[in-house]
Order: sequence, then structure tokens, then C-alpha cells
Amino acid sequence: MIARADQALARALPAEDRSPAELHRAMRYAVLGGGKRLRPLLVYAAGHALGEDGDALDAPACAVELIHAYSLVHDDLPAMDDDDLRRGRPTCHVVFGEAMAILAGDALQALAFELLANDAGADASRCVAMLRTLGRACGAEGMAGGQALDLAAVGHPLSLAELEHMHACKTGALIRASVRLGALAATADPSALDALDRYAHAVGLAFQVRDDILDVEGESAVIGKTAGKDAAADKPTFPSIIGLDASRARLDELTATALEAIAALGERGALLERLALYAARRHH
Amino acid sequence: MIARADQALARALPAEDRSPAELHRAMRYAVLGGGKRLRPLLVYAAGHALGEDGDALDAPACAVELIHAYSLVHDDLPAMDDDDLRRGRPTCHVVFGEAMAILAGDALQALAFELLANDAGADASRCVAMLRTLGRACGAEGMAGGQALDLAAVGHPLSLAELEHMHACKTGALIRASVRLGALAATADPSALDALDRYAHAVGLAFQVRDDILDVEGESAVIGKTAGKDAAADKPTFPSIIGLDASRARLDELTATALEAIAALGERGALLERLALYAARRHH
Repeated sequence: MIARADQALARALPAEDRSPAELHRAMRYAVLGGGKRLRPLLVYAAGHALGEDGDALDAPACAVELIHAYSLVHDDLPAMDDDDLRRGRPTCHVVFGEAMAILAGDALQALAFELLANDAGADASRCVAMLRTLGRACGAEGMAGGQALDLAAVGHPLSLAELEHMHACKTGALIRASVRLGALAATADPSALDALDRYAHAVGLAFQVRDDILDVEGESAVIGKTAGKDAAADKPTFPSIIGLDASRARLDELTATALEAIAALGERGALLERLALYAARRHH
Repeated sequence: MIARADQALARALPAEDRSPAELHRAMRYAVLGGGKRLRPLLVYAAGHALGEDGDALDAPACAVELIHAYSLVHDDLPAMDDDDLRRGRPTCHVVFGEAMAILAGDALQALAFELLANDAGADASRCVAMLRTLGRACGAEGMAGGQALDLAAVGHPLSLAELEHMHACKTGALIRASVRLGALAATADPSALDALDRYAHAVGLAFQVRDDILDVEGESAVIGKTAGKDAAADKPTFPSIIGLDASRARLDELTATALEAIAALGERGALLERLALYAARRHH
């Protein structure tokens, strides 16, 4: 399934030998360098759960990964998180320069919408619903808004509710959109959409709680101290606000919520179940 | 018509008192600070020419201006053109910081697509056609691609054909999309779309030729030398490649092409005609 996503992405991205070649190279570099492909997998898993196995899932799967990749390129910029490494490789702006990295991110966002709008397989009103879902997830009330809340939160104490709201926007919105796009591609009825949305909300948050726990545990194992790089950067995290034990309990609770939401799907929900367990138990 | 666009934009943008407030402020600052509103006016003019006078034009008019505003915010960043002033006010990153300016641009792009997709007045297949048009105009083969070509062109000699191709992408793609969106909102038939596209291509290029001429003439009048800031920045321009007289002749030729393309519209094309003449004759 990861291979399917990778192949669809390679086809969707503009060729490196076509003008403007440098921009196309930067876009492909940002997207095709590996990654967990969690969001495309959620599209496929949600679609499969509702009986859609066909090509109708490729465009939404690519669209959410293009958005995710653009957000990483912009987040890594010197003016944002100033990261030099991503997935073990130099970040996009290190290789192509800041200006080209900004443009590559911009063009990737546009390509995500264009790809969905070009998807002739979908009927038009379904296509509009998908575009509306993606637009909302990316914007000021979604991913970009969450990133703005994150910027504002550095050095400021957040309540647990504020922290969860920030993550529900920053990473949660696109994860929920991924599940919803897969469901829409399978022509889900409203009750199925609601259940899958509860699943996606819990998985998105669980993914982030696990991230924060790993930041603490990873550092602890390696250098014998309990505070990791988030704490060093004065970023609010689940362990810093409610402690490590309560964070683990919250993770279990979220995982249970996710699994309960898809219980009625039975065998068809197997892939969604695996992804929920992966989000909660992963070691990197 | 400018007032109508301004009001529609003020409604479409998220409120400043809603969270994330700083992001919303940056977005509104970037869009609502004045401007010629050429792109929304082209949407209205094309729609009117084909008999659409209603609210169906507001969403596409806003969408193209949101895209234009986001592109200015990103173009003004230190890593790009590094401009401190825009329309007589400090640029977005000067007021809100670089990180927030990057996010505001990103969120404005998403909002443009969301707004079009939310436009309940349009029928679904028309809506998809509009989203496809906007996506292509913004991406690597359109505006972002043109900006990448522009970056690559600094200090390199371009042929006239290369210069025109760069502008056809960088500013032309969104201008053509503006006219096309207005036409699509009015349910234009294919032959009307073709004629309006010829018009828009010519107007987009004429706008840029006039820009380059103004850069030379403006500087000349004020400080008595013939080279303006484009030449100082070693940017290729129409006057630098073909000379000032040939640039003026090219501008006349483009204006004639634009007017000829809409001649069949008669009175209904009056607004389009005025905008073509404005693009070619403006003094700022």
C-alpha cells in the first residue's frame, strides 16, 4: 500500500526534465524521499473499509501527502523550526535554497487541489465535497492555524485542552481529512462518516501523544535525562503538562476510542485498526 | 465594483477576534490593505460580458484576489524579493514576522480553494471546472512556476520569447484564470471561452509590458536616468531586451489583440475593454 502511494505520487508530480526544472526537482525531493505515508494509508484504509478498492483512492491519497510534504518544507524553513535534516536527508531549503523551498511548498499545495479537481473518476458533487474537506483542513481553522497556535505557544503555559486543540488543528485536521476523503471516495453514508471521524480524531491525537512520549523516552534511554528536545525548546507537550504516566493513560484511552469507533466495521476495518495501533505504539 | 470585491473579501476572511487571532490578523492585513483589484474586476467583467450579474461571481472574484495576495506576501519575504513596503505600508512579514507571514500566505491559498468549493450557488461540475482552473493557474506550470523562472532569470540573458513565457506563467496564469472563472460562472460556451482566453493572455502580457515601461519612464522623470530598479536588480525586462520603442509597439499590438478578441461582445464587453485599456495605459 505504501508502494502504491509512492508510485501514484511519482506519477502525480511534474517531471524533473520539464521546465521549470529546478522547481520540479525541489517538489519531487520534498515528497519522494520516503516517509511513513500515514495519511495516504488512512485514505486507502478508510476507502477499503467502506468497500472502495479501486483507483478512486489514488488522487485523494496523493493530495493529502502533497499537503503534508508542503507543510514539512515550510515548517523546516529558517524562519519557522529551522531544521537542517528531515528523514536523514538535508531539508529542502538546504538543498535548493530558501526561495525555491517556499515556492516548492506553495506549488505542492496547489498541486494537491488540482489533482483532486482533475480526478475524473469521481462524480462532481463528491469531488466538490472532497475539495471542501481538504481546503478546510489546510487553512486557518486547520493545519496552518494549528501551526500558528504552536508558534504562539512556545514559552507560554498551555492547558491540556489548549494543547489538544492545537494538535487537533496542526496535525489532526489533515489526518481527519485523510480518513474523510477515503470515506467520501467510497460514497460513505453520514453515519459511517461520523464513526470514521471519531476514529480519525482519536488517532490523530494519539499519534501526537505518542510523539511526545517518544521524545521523553528516547532521550531518557540515550542520554539519561528525562527532558527531550521539546522540553529543551520550551514547547508544551503532554508529558510536560500532565506527566508521563497520565500521558500513557491518555494514549490508551484514545486508542480505545479509535477502536470502538470502527468496531461495527468488523473485518473490513482491519487496516484502520492496524493503523490506530501503529500510531499508538510506534517507536519512531 | 472594487467596493463589491472589498466587501466580499472582508466577509470571506476569518474574523480578527477569533482564534488563531494573530494569523487571522495577518491574513486580513495582507488582503484588505487596498490594491487595484484587477483580478476580481476581470472576474466580474467576464461574467457580466456573458450575462451573469449575480452573486455567483463573488466567490471566484475573492478566490483570485486571495491567491494574488498570498503570492505578494511570499514574494516580499526576505528570502525572495525582500521588500519592506507594499502599497505604502510595511509588508506582512515586517508587521507579523516571517513565520506568521509564511503561514498567512499558506492559509490564504487554502482559503481560496475552500471558498470556491463552498460556493453553493455554483453547480458541482462547474465548481470542479473552476477549482481545476484555479489549481493549474497557481501551481508549478502557473504562478509558482513563473516565480521560479523569474528567480532563475536574474543575471541571465533571456530571449523575448523566454521573457514572455516567464510572465505568461508568473502573472499571466492568474489573470487568465480570473477571466476564465468569470466566464465559467456565467456558463460560457467553448467558443466564448476561447475568445476570452485570447483577451486575457494579451491583457496579462500588456500589464507586464506597461510595468516594465513605467519602471523606466518613472525613474527617468524623477532622477534623470533611463535605468530603473529592474535594470539595477539585473532583472530582464521588455525595454532591456527589445528597447523602449519596440516595447511600446508590443504594448499597442497586445492591446489591439485584446480588443479584437472581445469585439464580438459589443456593448456587453465594455467593462473588459476598459480593463484592457487600463492595463496598457495606467501610470502606476
